Amino acid sequence: MPIYNAPLKDMDFILNDVFKADEFWQANENLAHLDVATANAILEEMAKFSKNVILDLNRSADESGGAQFNLGEVKTPEGFKDAFNQFAQGGWVGLGAPEEWGGQGMPKMLTVLADEMIWSTNPSFMLYPLLTVGAGMAINDRASQEQKETYLPKFYTGEWSGTMCLTEPHSGTDLGIIKTKAEPNDDGSYNITGTKIFITSGEHDLCENIIHLVLAKTPNAPAGSRGISLFIVPKFLVNADGTLGERNAVGAGSIEHKMGIKGSATCVMNFDGAKGYMVGKENEGLAGMFVMMNYERLSMGIQGIGASEYAYQNAAQYATDRLQGRAATGVQSPEKPADSILVHGDVRRMLLNVRANNEASRAFAVYVGQQLDITKYSTDAEAVRKANDRVALLTPIAKAYLTDTALQATLEAQMCFGGHGYIREWGMEQCIRDLRIAQIYEGTNGVQAIDLIGRKTIKCSGAFVAEYMAEILEFSNTMPDSTLKQAVVNVCGKVEALTQFVVEQSKSNPNFSNAVAVDYLHVVGLLSFVYMFARIHEAARVKAEPFYQHKLVLADYYVAKVLPDLAARAERIYAGADLIMQLPQDYFTAQA
Amino acid sequence: MPIYNAPLKDMDFILNDVFKADEFWQANENLAHLDVATANAILEEMAKFSKNVILDLNRSADESGGAQFNLGEVKTPEGFKDAFNQFAQGGWVGLGAPEEWGGQGMPKMLTVLADEMIWSTNPSFMLYPLLTVGAGMAINDRASQEQKETYLPKFYTGEWSGTMCLTEPHSGTDLGIIKTKAEPNDDGSYNITGTKIFITSGEHDLCENIIHLVLAKTPNAPAGSRGISLFIVPKFLVNADGTLGERNAVGAGSIEHKMGIKGSATCVMNFDGAKGYMVGKENEGLAGMFVMMNYERLSMGIQGIGASEYAYQNAAQYATDRLQGRAATGVQSPEKPADSILVHGDVRRMLLNVRANNEASRAFAVYVGQQLDITKYSTDAEAVRKANDRVALLTPIAKAYLTDTALQATLEAQMCFGGHGYIREWGMEQCIRDLRIAQIYEGTNGVQAIDLIGRKTIKCSGAFVAEYMAEILEFSNTMPDSTLKQAVVNVCGKVEALTQFVVEQSKSNPNFSNAVAVDYLHVVGLLSFVYMFARIHEAARVKAEPFYQHKLVLADYYVAKVLPDLAARAERIYAGADLIMQLPQDYFTAQA
Repeated sequence: MPIYNAPLKDMDFILNDVFKADEFWQANENLAHLDVATANAILEEMAKFSKNVILDLNRSADESGGAQFNLGEVKTPEGFKDAFNQFAQGGWVGLGAPEEWGGQGMPKMLTVLADEMIWSTNPSFMLYPLLTVGAGMAINDRASQEQKETYLPKFYTGEWSGTMCLTEPHSGTDLGIIKTKAEPNDDGSYNITGTKIFITSGEHDLCENIIHLVLAKTPNAPAGSRGISLFIVPKFLVNADGTLGERNAVGAGSIEHKMGIKGSATCVMNFDGAKGYMVGKENEGLAGMFVMMNYERLSMGIQGIGASEYAYQNAAQYATDRLQGRAATGVQSPEKPADSILVHGDVRRMLLNVRANNEASRAFAVYVGQQLDITKYSTDAEAVRKANDRVALLTPIAKAYLTDTALQATLEAQMCFGGHGYIREWGMEQCIRDLRIAQIYEGTNGVQAIDLIGRKTIKCSGAFVAEYMAEILEFSNTMPDSTLKQAVVNVCGKVEALTQFVVEQSKSNPNFSNAVAVDYLHVVGLLSFVYMFARIHEAARVKAEPFYQHKLVLADYYVAKVLPDLAARAERIYAGADLIMQLPQDYFTAQA
Repeated sequence: MPIYNAPLKDMDFILNDVFKADEFWQANENLAHLDVATANAILEEMAKFSKNVILDLNRSADESGGAQFNLGEVKTPEGFKDAFNQFAQGGWVGLGAPEEWGGQGMPKMLTVLADEMIWSTNPSFMLYPLLTVGAGMAINDRASQEQKETYLPKFYTGEWSGTMCLTEPHSGTDLGIIKTKAEPNDDGSYNITGTKIFITSGEHDLCENIIHLVLAKTPNAPAGSRGISLFIVPKFLVNADGTLGERNAVGAGSIEHKMGIKGSATCVMNFDGAKGYMVGKENEGLAGMFVMMNYERLSMGIQGIGASEYAYQNAAQYATDRLQGRAATGVQSPEKPADSILVHGDVRRMLLNVRANNEASRAFAVYVGQQLDITKYSTDAEAVRKANDRVALLTPIAKAYLTDTALQATLEAQMCFGGHGYIREWGMEQCIRDLRIAQIYEGTNGVQAIDLIGRKTIKCSGAFVAEYMAEILEFSNTMPDSTLKQAVVNVCGKVEALTQFVVEQSKSNPNFSNAVAVDYLHVVGLLSFVYMFARIHEAARVKAEPFYQHKLVLADYYVAKVLPDLAARAERIYAGADLIMQLPQDYFTAQA
């Protein structure tokens, strides 16, 4: 059976040694109630829940076929309801939500670590509370006081859950062409009519009510994305006293059969004149939905970390136990029929790739979490401005780069098992199937890359990247000389030149940015990871224990063995867009 | 539903324009009966069979749960038996087998193309005849005349099938530690006892008998791989007159639940004193099994091509039909709500990556097929020697590089579908699940890389690579000046330097080769693909039709956008093994 032990020591190191959470919390009035001991106690509790409650349900949910659909109702996998009740009663749904509405008010730099454990042990389970938390953020940000009072407390007790209804059969990335209609009623409500697809947790049996956040168009709304409004559409209407009223005209038509995350119900939702309530202003719905969307995007990155950590732990254990062949330097375990496959460089290479990915991406998630906390808790306007720009720049990296690298990491971990990685019992094949969606949903990684290179780079002429690199170079100035320090400086030089090239080229060639976007995203991702290793390195090098000293080796490994990808990405960007765009459209499907 | 149309025009181009099959066949006495028209007619027949008979069974086999095990018997998916009967009656099992034994005697450079179509449309189905063909090759190469007469004709009629029984629970890559025993009987036969796992087609209902080729150790055999013998173990013993006798003491204990290729029965086989007949000489079994193994390894590469081609066709069609957003250069289809996503550079980038992979890898398979044909049919001893060396060098490339690139290709094709790529109905998620095994079975791709860098490179001080590059440079000398020609020359220079470095380093550092093996394999893979584009380019540039002229663009695309990977691989190789090997073994599993 697959194993999992939360990497608590590593989480403590990143939170407290690398990012000095304690100092940060003390310096922010609204976080000063929090200390390291409390934070670690929270992580320890989640470590127990993830290992003891949801880990085993991960495999059983997959093997039993996942969520089951019957006559409009969804039955979640065996054990999910009990686990969700424990989760809700433990206060986990609202861990990062405002205390005002029943949340725990914990900072993001802490909640990303708790979330990672759930993603490691049961991604399908994670998706049920995840959408609730995102919907709560959008409501908290955009809705009326009455709407907040009606919905938010029920979210954080786990009694009700939330969804995000954007996609339609003909409309995914391009939300400007959605067809779902919202017709006003005399009482200020709307009748919502249309079909939404790929709705995570659209229907299920974990909660007594489901609150859909729905994008729709009012009559005579402007064409395109400027004519989209946001609506709350509850499964059961809510009476004035907060009790549940009649069933609304919204229901699941079917659920999808998917590559993975089978325990999560992905629903086709039919709105048939369902009663809805506008959130925020008419035609400004997309911005409201993006409050939720940006939260989910960071979460997808954490899904990547979770999967990669889980894959690493299982692969490292398997490799330790698996005896095949002998070390090239001579027999290591003469008492055994063969040596552990850890003696083979190629196995180590794969494991170190995964390990490096875990440590860098975990640090990155905490870093982005801290930036989010600054935007929320800081009273320094310039610090908030900077952090907002940083979050804008790094959200696509968190979503896309962390999931791209995680998929490669889990594939390498699977390879450590040989044929055993391909069969069900070791858990690796499910891990990959479950993770793959993270590169696709909440805007494909290609769409993330286009967001990064367009809105976050070209639009500001590279200012966000420049400010990020100024921070990185300032940090590297505090480092003693080393291969890593030189690498940081080198990478910054290369990224600066590439960014200038991108900004310049895009002026004369409208096709340029889209064609090189993914390569540019990986460039900024590599920059980010080498920066994280610099921060890890500085926190670790002053400590003598092997746990810390080994991190210096891993950082050097990253520079020597992963960072070279930058050379290939740069060459591709400099090669431009012309060879991509010059073939006629019918080339692609012409009979070969 | 997924689509597939065999790329017959492209196959004809590669076979006849690029590799001038006709001239080659005419020049070899034993192939002179074959001409282009016959070859194309064969491919057209297979195109029909793959599209009309097995394509639909691919999805139904997966959805129904694949092969089913009950009380030692395996039921193949609905429709497989009828399809297999058609396949066998069409003479396809023995397409490349000797006419002497009922085969069609077709050359490998043709059969790789027929095989590709089956891999495209139904990889689980392909695995049933595949093992038969491989077992037939081993028997033809190593067995006695009587054994050949007994088994081979039955293989090529499809009445009996074959298997390859190597792996045991504790012994996969390291076959030297197998435990299966072979105890001699007075009549010259042996009693075989042991457990083999991951046995493809170990039990099924398509054929009346199953002939297992089994590795086992005779009493007092030398330790390690020098003490392994090869045995024929039939499911039903064969009477002197060729009819079936009593059931042998071999049977399936269970089948595996796998990530993909669910229609293929992967069996645990229990040998309980089963009667077996030695093939070839005692203790020389591994070499005999490698006749089969090397055949399977090239086949895995073709599995990669098949999957990548299938993924391309479906993704290109989906991208053409899917309307989202508008072209960066302005609206392309004003009459529609949005433009085809083919206007977006990132979608084109993904499709071109897949397309480039298909065309280069298909050419490479035909090239390797031609080399195999030279070893078999040529009467020129020096040509045979050269071709043998070339095949030795390129078999790990065919197996590992073609499946590594194919997995990336299918992942990119899946991404073109957005969320639709993750659900069952478009066929992409199954394609990836089915393909993933190709990187793992028949020796993981890491093991292939170690074979390439060790036995095929370091052992001969780089002579195989040098002779390959001499051919490539000689060819490039005939090319007019172009970016592609320069790229070929550049790459050869880099590979030469890298090979020297590898040979040198391995003298002083026994860990070096294993640690850089996969990167070196990719370097030789990139060299091979750029060579294939050079050959494609030279055959295409003299023709004016867009079909040919577009190949020149694709070749330039490859140089600009795929070949840069070489820079990253080279940096990693030059970074050496030390950072990989220096961490202690317990680092990998120490609690983090």
